Amino acid sequence: MEQLLQYGQSVLASQPFSQLLGARLVALSSGAAEIHLRMRSDLLQQHGFAHGGVVSYLADNALTFAGGSLLGDALTLEYKINYVRPAKGELLVARARVTSSGKNLAVCHCDVFCSSADEEVLCAVAQGTIWKKS
Amino acid sequence: MEQLLQYGQSVLASQPFSQLLGARLVALSSGAAEIHLRMRSDLLQQHGFAHGGVVSYLADNALTFAGGSLLGDALTLEYKINYVRPAKGELLVARARVTSSGKNLAVCHCDVFCSSADEEVLCAVAQGTIWKKS
Amino acid sequence: MEQLLQYGQSVLASQPFSQLLGARLVALSSGAAEIHLRMRSDLLQQHGFAHGGVVSYLADNALTFAGGSLLGDALTLEYKINYVRPAKGELLVARARVTSSGKNLAVCHCDVFCSSADEEVLCAVAQGTIWKKS
Amino acid sequence: MEQLLQYGQSVLASQPFSQLLGARLVALSSGAAEIHLRMRSDLLQQHGFAHGGVVSYLADNALTFAGGSLLGDALTLEYKINYVRPAKGELLVARARVTSSGKNLAVCHCDVFCSSADEEVLCAVAQGTIWKKS
Repeated sequence: MEQLLQYGQSVLASQPFSQLLGARLVALSSGAAEIHLRMRSDLLQQHGFAHGGVVSYLADNALTFAGGSLLGDALTLEYKINYVRPAKGELLVARARVTSSGKNLAVCHCDVFCSSADEEVLCAVAQGTIWKKS
Repeated sequence: MEQLLQYGQSVLASQPFSQLLGARLVALSSGAAEIHLRMRSDLLQQHGFAHGGVVSYLADNALTFAGGSLLGDALTLEYKINYVRPAKGELLVARARVTSSGKNLAVCHCDVFCSSADEEVLCAVAQGTIWKKS
Repeated sequence: MEQLLQYGQSVLASQPFSQLLGARLVALSSGAAEIHLRMRSDLLQQHGFAHGGVVSYLADNALTFAGGSLLGDALTLEYKINYVRPAKGELLVARARVTSSGKNLAVCHCDVFCSSADEEVLCAVAQGTIWKKS
Repeated sequence: MEQLLQYGQSVLASQPFSQLLGARLVALSSGAAEIHLRMRSDLLQQHGFAHGGVVSYLADNALTFAGGSLLGDALTLEYKINYVRPAKGELLVARARVTSSGKNLAVCHCDVFCSSADEEVLCAVAQGTIWKKS
């Protein structure tokens, strides 16, 4: 388990865009992944919330890591995201899990939360297809 | 038309995340928007292509601007994106248009292209719902 | 609770297409709905499984009932469905729940199962937006 | 071309659910498909419009035929649909085309129209992934 997480972290570390945003993979197990992102002023939109693109990035990446934990080196084929609440607060937490998987395909779900000291509030939900190129 | 574009550009300029990525709104008319993004090394993933999060950001933002051009101040309620090809090259171009709109809701479509001197290659397609909070 | 279910059943009974397919609303509470459909030979596709359109119908309708249980008379604005396994067996079961809701909008999730005497197997997952026209 | 259409029609004829609904494949070429459905009272919902499940069926099936025209025997992996207007009138027309395709996967778009003697009105748009099991 620890090895899978370390491997995942090395993958995330090799993504320049993830480094630019400051994403951290904090958990990775068979069929589940959790990515954290500390909010910064340069990640916001015009109303002071995390930009949708930041929330989408998190969901997309967490979906890929969750699927990849079962499939191996994989990519997001497609996903759909509903923003359910403005994303505010100091920390964004994306938790993804595999809903169903086969040899080359996994369908995954992701919840994105705004996290503070005393609560987590859901701000987006996503569903997507992860694919291992055969 | 020129006024709408200038207004849109001022909105984009007020999004810190869009500034971080270097997005430019190059066209905005009633029901259509085009956003450009020059590729940079810090926007890539581990295989040297634009990170999916960058492509999603572009699609999401172009959808919002297209919908907002008809609805006024609006936000993306949800969208779905299919990545159809790795995003490479110097320039990403997102073109969005309104498919259908009402008083508070617009359904929009977006194509994202990898653009070079001599061709444009489709790398993602998105469909989403833009909403003007009533 | 019993009243909500009876009301929901009267709505389903007023949908000719739901009657044609033989759908039954077996549970409806605040934020959750369950619809059953007994498989019949005229609901299949060419390989002997339930047609995708039947599975989609179930997911769509269950999403609407779940959202409508909180919003009142509502409709499905949009949804996305992943078919994860061929739908076979005697009974299809769609279970939907509200993930997040506001005054006019609810985001809902639905699982569709192939159910037999001794097990339920997931065959599709859907996520959608339910809207109460204001 | 004529041969492809005839083959497609034989596939549709082998889908009992498509026969139950009365769907007709009226065009099929490389990368495009058109399915018609004459409205009937047993295909409606409670407000007198075509049931969403009928519209979804049409979109899903048209997407599959469009993708299958390039991939061969294929299935819908997933799709997303936005209902943009109540579906009324005597005839529903679903037109799907391939947006992008590879060896095993095709991304397709579908418009569903309410058609009458003098006009076509868009009532739904869908985007989905068609897959040829390798």
